[in-house]
Amino acid sequence: MFAPVYLDHNATTPLDAEVREAMLPFLDARYGNPSSRHEYGRQARAAIEDARARVAGAVGAHATEVVFTSGGSEANNLIIKGVAGRMRPGIVATSAIEHPCVREPARQLARHGWQHVEIAVDAAGRIDRGHWQQVLQERPAIVSVMLANNESGVVQEIATLATEAKRVGAVFHTDAVQAVGKLAVDFRALGVHAMTLSAHKLHGPIGTGALVLDKRVDLEAQVAGGGQERNLRSGTENVAAIVGFARACELAVARRADEAERLGALREVLERGLAALGARVFSADATRLPGTSFFAFDDVDGETLVGKLDRAGFAIASGSACSSVNPEPSRTLLAMGVSHRQAKGAVRVSLGYGNTTRQVQDFVATLGATLAELKTLVAVSA
Amino acid sequence: MFAPVYLDHNATTPLDAEVREAMLPFLDARYGNPSSRHEYGRQARAAIEDARARVAGAVGAHATEVVFTSGGSEANNLIIKGVAGRMRPGIVATSAIEHPCVREPARQLARHGWQHVEIAVDAAGRIDRGHWQQVLQERPAIVSVMLANNESGVVQEIATLATEAKRVGAVFHTDAVQAVGKLAVDFRALGVHAMTLSAHKLHGPIGTGALVLDKRVDLEAQVAGGGQERNLRSGTENVAAIVGFARACELAVARRADEAERLGALREVLERGLAALGARVFSADATRLPGTSFFAFDDVDGETLVGKLDRAGFAIASGSACSSVNPEPSRTLLAMGVSHRQAKGAVRVSLGYGNTTRQVQDFVATLGATLAELKTLVAVSA
Repeated sequence: MFAPVYLDHNATTPLDAEVREAMLPFLDARYGNPSSRHEYGRQARAAIEDARARVAGAVGAHATEVVFTSGGSEANNLIIKGVAGRMRPGIVATSAIEHPCVREPARQLARHGWQHVEIAVDAAGRIDRGHWQQVLQERPAIVSVMLANNESGVVQEIATLATEAKRVGAVFHTDAVQAVGKLAVDFRALGVHAMTLSAHKLHGPIGTGALVLDKRVDLEAQVAGGGQERNLRSGTENVAAIVGFARACELAVARRADEAERLGALREVLERGLAALGARVFSADATRLPGTSFFAFDDVDGETLVGKLDRAGFAIASGSACSSVNPEPSRTLLAMGVSHRQAKGAVRVSLGYGNTTRQVQDFVATLGATLAELKTLVAVSA
Repeated sequence: MFAPVYLDHNATTPLDAEVREAMLPFLDARYGNPSSRHEYGRQARAAIEDARARVAGAVGAHATEVVFTSGGSEANNLIIKGVAGRMRPGIVATSAIEHPCVREPARQLARHGWQHVEIAVDAAGRIDRGHWQQVLQERPAIVSVMLANNESGVVQEIATLATEAKRVGAVFHTDAVQAVGKLAVDFRALGVHAMTLSAHKLHGPIGTGALVLDKRVDLEAQVAGGGQERNLRSGTENVAAIVGFARACELAVARRADEAERLGALREVLERGLAALGARVFSADATRLPGTSFFAFDDVDGETLVGKLDRAGFAIASGSACSSVNPEPSRTLLAMGVSHRQAKGAVRVSLGYGNTTRQVQDFVATLGATLAELKTLVAVSA
């Protein structure tokens, strides 16, 4: 298999070898259904409860606050629609730069009697404080603002926002899938009612995630049935994935400080190179995730650049992976006031564990050569 | 690890070694997000589309009719609530013996303006034809009847029921999670609008399943977001699990005829032994899944028996695994008119690939000894 250098860690991450080792017994002899009342079932149940405590410990929560789901998208749907299912229709407010799996459930509610308000961001991609205060005056029932954006990497001041939103009686949720392992994430310190995690964003497996949930928040299950996960998420628990998720959380937390510093330095190398090539780096003045760089070149199409770099051996993204089924310009950038034309040029590099200085230097060199080639083509065709 | 003989295949099944082999590359170097537009992403996308065609082929459907979910519970919730989300409230009819992940979504609808009707079954656990006709006269919008019951193993005449339900304008769904690999399952021949599959019931991994769906049925996504699975199920696809699911479906279909015959013969051995010990076998006169036997002994508690047999080296179930979080007597049996007292005694043996005649003979002998011991205890304490 042709294996390009992987620079797309905000889309998904390679499974850590230690995580895989932790999972394998549950894909083999330890195959029980955790609801079964025999040895196989008890082994599976014990593994899940052990994993729950470890995931909770990694994010400063209590084990009873962790609800395992099939991933981040499901957790985001669960909190938004689950809370709404227990209330009369009101206002659901989400930031204008949320991932589609927060925005779309809110839009679904808007088709069932709710009002969906999007909270504006400033030119750097931070919540617009003026609009925020306006939105709170309307007393939203549910507010969701992501901890760190998947495209720009911008980190929001969630603790402050949560305090203010709770003061007007809102249930406050944050999608933290991009943050764990890159920032210190503490459920208590953030003071949110609910927080979404995803295993495959932190070198764990695809197929599991969690909603960390203040137990005072009443939710309607979105997958109803056998009553698993305190009756909030039915269905046979994905034991192997959950066990891997726990190990991945521990590794992410253990490596975080060193990795954040290392990735920050790597991005410095990258962005010096980008500056020399004439890139505009979005949100460069905001607090960002350490390894994320979102940028564009004038008159260069992002999709084209991603394709050329892929063939040249570098895997990067244009817009977010999940929305690239439908290649529209990044909503994050449009919300920041970036022109449609420049947004179409945006590409994202997201560095991660395993990336080296040499890889970044090679990437910058290849990017330079690719841009030169594209400009030649434009010159020839003009 | 203490490894009892596993006789609980309707709860979950061991992962087939070939299935595991098919999955492992996707838990290693082939880790891409299928939505990513680079080599890793394309590899993952190709693997999913290949798997989709193979799952479809195994059940007589077209690839475009397969919607991957995180499992059977999610697929059942998706069809029931997804259809309802596109309609004005009406009647949702489910059989009285459905798995909780069909019954509970229907009960949720009843809290949101719908009327939930349960279709009665006869003493053998088959749909009561008289009540069925009554229910159809009320013109239900959604009807769900399982293909084969997880506890009794009773097989319903789905093709006939589907024809009749469609005639009154209902969307007809069948939960087929217990049927694939044990019965010949053909989506076209059944004539249903939708059918639920689960990988871990057929030696595939926990964490994936599918809703096989007639594309003329309009559904509201229950996990909304990035637009994966034709916008019916968002969230990064569980590539490894989906690839394993496809291999598991193929193996299940290839082995079905031989296995059905073999398991039928094994169950004969089992039920001759049970008869000699004085068991009542439920639904013995109905058409059942080949390896499932649901039975009780007078004055013996099912939970107690499961515990004793577990310690003696045999893993069996009392009631369905998913509902045994909450050990109430089997709803399937109560719906069949079995007394509360006798239902409390019910235990289930579900045989599968790998079980041998010797294991069944040993089980019968151990069961006999356990019953004798329990009777002695009762005699001593009396």
